[in-house]
Amino acid sequence: MKKLAIGIDIGGTNTVFGLVDNEGNMHGEASISTRKYPDIDQYVEELYIGIQSLIKQLNFECELVGVGIGGPNANYYRGTIENAANLQWKGVIPIVEMMKRYFINIPVIVTNDANAAAIGEMVYGGAKGMKNFVVVTLGTGLGSGFVANGELIYGNDGFAGELGHVIVNRTGRICGCGRKGCLETYVSATGIKRTVFKLLADHLENSEFRSISYNDLTAEMITRAALNGDTLAIEAYEYTGMLLGQALADAVTITSPEAIFLFGGLAKAGKYLFEPTKKYMEMHMLSNFRNQVKLLPSGIDGKNAAILGASALVWQEQ
Amino acid sequence: MKKLAIGIDIGGTNTVFGLVDNEGNMHGEASISTRKYPDIDQYVEELYIGIQSLIKQLNFECELVGVGIGGPNANYYRGTIENAANLQWKGVIPIVEMMKRYFINIPVIVTNDANAAAIGEMVYGGAKGMKNFVVVTLGTGLGSGFVANGELIYGNDGFAGELGHVIVNRTGRICGCGRKGCLETYVSATGIKRTVFKLLADHLENSEFRSISYNDLTAEMITRAALNGDTLAIEAYEYTGMLLGQALADAVTITSPEAIFLFGGLAKAGKYLFEPTKKYMEMHMLSNFRNQVKLLPSGIDGKNAAILGASALVWQEQ
Repeated sequence: MKKLAIGIDIGGTNTVFGLVDNEGNMHGEASISTRKYPDIDQYVEELYIGIQSLIKQLNFECELVGVGIGGPNANYYRGTIENAANLQWKGVIPIVEMMKRYFINIPVIVTNDANAAAIGEMVYGGAKGMKNFVVVTLGTGLGSGFVANGELIYGNDGFAGELGHVIVNRTGRICGCGRKGCLETYVSATGIKRTVFKLLADHLENSEFRSISYNDLTAEMITRAALNGDTLAIEAYEYTGMLLGQALADAVTITSPEAIFLFGGLAKAGKYLFEPTKKYMEMHMLSNFRNQVKLLPSGIDGKNAAILGASALVWQEQ
Repeated sequence: MKKLAIGIDIGGTNTVFGLVDNEGNMHGEASISTRKYPDIDQYVEELYIGIQSLIKQLNFECELVGVGIGGPNANYYRGTIENAANLQWKGVIPIVEMMKRYFINIPVIVTNDANAAAIGEMVYGGAKGMKNFVVVTLGTGLGSGFVANGELIYGNDGFAGELGHVIVNRTGRICGCGRKGCLETYVSATGIKRTVFKLLADHLENSEFRSISYNDLTAEMITRAALNGDTLAIEAYEYTGMLLGQALADAVTITSPEAIFLFGGLAKAGKYLFEPTKKYMEMHMLSNFRNQVKLLPSGIDGKNAAILGASALVWQEQ
């Protein structure tokens, strides 16, 4: 009987889920609206119904080995989602306990999205066999998962790996966390939008972005413009890569990883992000680490990456 | 028969060594000059003779369980000391292999001084039972050892934990590593000397340091002056603590430690270092880590700390 893990990624808008085997093959996936369920009990019930429906659609018998959940502000130790700014459920949500009412005899594990991505990279992706690496997720914010000695670093409280909140400029941009100059205010989908608006203010040259409002601008539009040769978009990526490269050089001194994987929307810009990031990372690197650390695109990045990452939590603990 | 580990700390000037039981009790210690032996083979032989002599002085039978060595630029994986600026043996020294010629049947382990301090803290000191903590050693430079999931992070190449080379000011002070603004150019015995000289340049107020040359000034003199109420010395510690506190707040976001231990000469300044460090660390901390991370003096700091740290390498692997 084929063994399958359930992978669930809880996003602010939608929750995607699927059934994944231990080689990372997806055997059915679906989604429900996260926003539609302000009542968490209703949400969990709907999620259970959706998963049951996927299982019924399988054309083979399966054994479910566990449920892996990736979500914002998730705490691995406590099995909770805590005060997530982008979710409507306020306070501390005991998501593992709630899911266990439906999945009684199998493990239910939760962690944050970036940690799930790191474990996904280790189980199915480019970090197979690596003992020391970092995954940086570049979405609305910047998340990260650090693996050392073959294990994800959760830290004392379960919230380790907040590279997005390393401060790169103490008098810099206001961050959602209430402080100033956090890396994610520069290096993220939101960060590069802010950089484009800074460049529009500083420069006079024409740009397609002069007719677009802040609210309408997306990171994808900046990537497309860079691919079309827009100098302002390319400069925005250069600046983003500079700050990311410098921050990665600093992070390397702490955990000395074999590789750093870039995951998520912004990494899709390819050379426009990777080239400046690599250039500035090496330029600012302590000499014994120089040219020793691989900078790689994620090996699981794609439409199912978040489900794969969440399901990997289960396989990693088998 | 009592089990004892040999602990050896290789310094640029002297090498200290001793016999340590698994509770951190020292049963004899001695030292030899490191400088006196430009020939590494002679040095190792002399070290062996010194250790044999300690063993003969014991008034009980013992079983030697291993040799732990702390040294500058030591590589745990390769068993080497590599291009250490403060040692006269150039290139890569296979210290473990050389020691094994004398200690054939017991493990010989080497790591850098800061990693040895971290393991010492875990085995004998204030970090007993902790799974996630950091030790920062404040000597001529700034070293660090990061423990996560109960294991020291050596990283891919064995050189992890170089917190002293996180860059805190990209246009800042020249560092011995060839770059600018590394944390240790501000936060170390040398760093605080540089800060005193910067303050002498910036201010006009009188100070006992106005009659002392850079070469004659020591960190101990600055500490003594602070204890005597010298405002310039106190300001130098305030500035040192500010930069250390900010850097620790950033480091916490990566590994989320339960505690950070300050070890070494500068930590002897007590409240003059701890108070500003704690104040700025909390001020710059991401909110979910605020008031969660203990800032503590080392539990093994003292005249034998380096030997204890090195010997702990052996007990940790028993």
